[in-house]
Amino acid sequence: MPVLVVKLGGTEGVDFAGIAREVAHLRTTRPDLALVLVHGGSAEANALGEALDYPPRFVTSPSGFTSRYTDRRTLEIFLMAVRGKVNGLLVEHLQRLGVNALGLSGLDGRLLQARRKGAIRVVENGKRKILRGDYTGKIQAVNTALLTLLMGQGYVPVVAPLAASEQGEALNVDADRAAAMIAAALAADTLVLLTAAPGLLERFPDESTLIRRLPRARLDQAMTYAQGRMKKKVLAAQEALEGGVGRVVIADGRVEGALAAALDGAGTVIS
Amino acid sequence: MPVLVVKLGGTEGVDFAGIAREVAHLRTTRPDLALVLVHGGSAEANALGEALDYPPRFVTSPSGFTSRYTDRRTLEIFLMAVRGKVNGLLVEHLQRLGVNALGLSGLDGRLLQARRKGAIRVVENGKRKILRGDYTGKIQAVNTALLTLLMGQGYVPVVAPLAASEQGEALNVDADRAAAMIAAALAADTLVLLTAAPGLLERFPDESTLIRRLPRARLDQAMTYAQGRMKKKVLAAQEALEGGVGRVVIADGRVEGALAAALDGAGTVIS
Repeated sequence: MPVLVVKLGGTEGVDFAGIAREVAHLRTTRPDLALVLVHGGSAEANALGEALDYPPRFVTSPSGFTSRYTDRRTLEIFLMAVRGKVNGLLVEHLQRLGVNALGLSGLDGRLLQARRKGAIRVVENGKRKILRGDYTGKIQAVNTALLTLLMGQGYVPVVAPLAASEQGEALNVDADRAAAMIAAALAADTLVLLTAAPGLLERFPDESTLIRRLPRARLDQAMTYAQGRMKKKVLAAQEALEGGVGRVVIADGRVEGALAAALDGAGTVIS
Repeated sequence: MPVLVVKLGGTEGVDFAGIAREVAHLRTTRPDLALVLVHGGSAEANALGEALDYPPRFVTSPSGFTSRYTDRRTLEIFLMAVRGKVNGLLVEHLQRLGVNALGLSGLDGRLLQARRKGAIRVVENGKRKILRGDYTGKIQAVNTALLTLLMGQGYVPVVAPLAASEQGEALNVDADRAAAMIAAALAADTLVLLTAAPGLLERFPDESTLIRRLPRARLDQAMTYAQGRMKKKVLAAQEALEGGVGRVVIADGRVEGALAAALDGAGTVIS
């Protein structure tokens, strides 16, 4: 059964209702295609943190990646905003369109098993520091049996970016890389990473420098010009391709027909 | 496979960590027993609503039942607090003890299908009124295939009290009655309703008037002395027994060893 994994943006104004309509359409036109959706939710988590007077704290690693510092209270805010609301509303969108969506976080049934970082190295004001008590993780295994069990019965899994540590703790994980790991574990034909940009830009933010085709051999080079969040998407693309995924498409999630366009080769196709 | 359904209190200080330890113990001593947990979460939803400056509004029906008026914003708060946090932390408790718990709300995979009330009749200041825009529902069907699929692979489903309307909308449902419907659909041997009282009291709040054994024929009469939330538990017990459940135990969830005590016949045993 061919598998398609789609990562919907969290932060970036990707149109959930539109994607849900496209998924419903795909279920009719391509009933043979098994689908897994993965979503983010940073914007909701940030907004909830602000509303609860516990704003997010972002940290930068020595290698230049930005991530959310997740102490225990932030993890609970993340559970509420991302596992509760974003995932729930996406499942509801799909159910309203007749798609039998089923929300899971990576914690559930140990869908995603991760190594807890615990202490993370960060750079603040030019100085290196170590922050402890962090509840983020790096995914190490995917429970493919659970996904195939559900997909085999016609459910569409909708995955929130959390994972279980070896000790069973809930961890916040990067959604792009979660999607990549899931796509690799399922040997997906295609991984689509929807975002709020036309794709990978050689000279950000000049959209006329969109890279349309990128052979995997040039991914290392792409890391030098990918900016901000796009770095993680390039890394995710690399992990997916190394894991056996056929192609990765980084495409614009803000436009009508975003998913169909991505499957048609819009955006940046990496293979 | 014998089935046990346990409803953990939401509002009432039921000890989640203790119950998780008991569930882990049961998984070892009674590996033949299939388990489903159902939880509430009113206290968390109330607290989140207060923190977000959107406090809960409780309404009373003409027949004397109290429930949460659930407009769209309240539904989203409920998704965050109950589907996100309470469910997530309970799954985490269990995973930390080696139980492969999997959180679901009734919306997911249409686990619980309900009829949306939409407009509800309430009594306020002695006057009858109709409130519209309500997102609560009355459960009409349980997706037993999904539960047996998961239980058959060793997962312990942990169910948050939401449901899908016929149109696929997310609805808030009563957790006691959700547990009763699930127990009936699975033809459970036992439904345990844990609460913050020793059981059903003939003269509330005098705990010396605990009713230890109640034949189902006397349930109608019990409705006359059950107070507040206990009315819904009695109704749930009735629905479960009418649906074919062997026995219902309403027992104290605040004590060490609450589940074992309930299975041993502590509290009120209705059959």
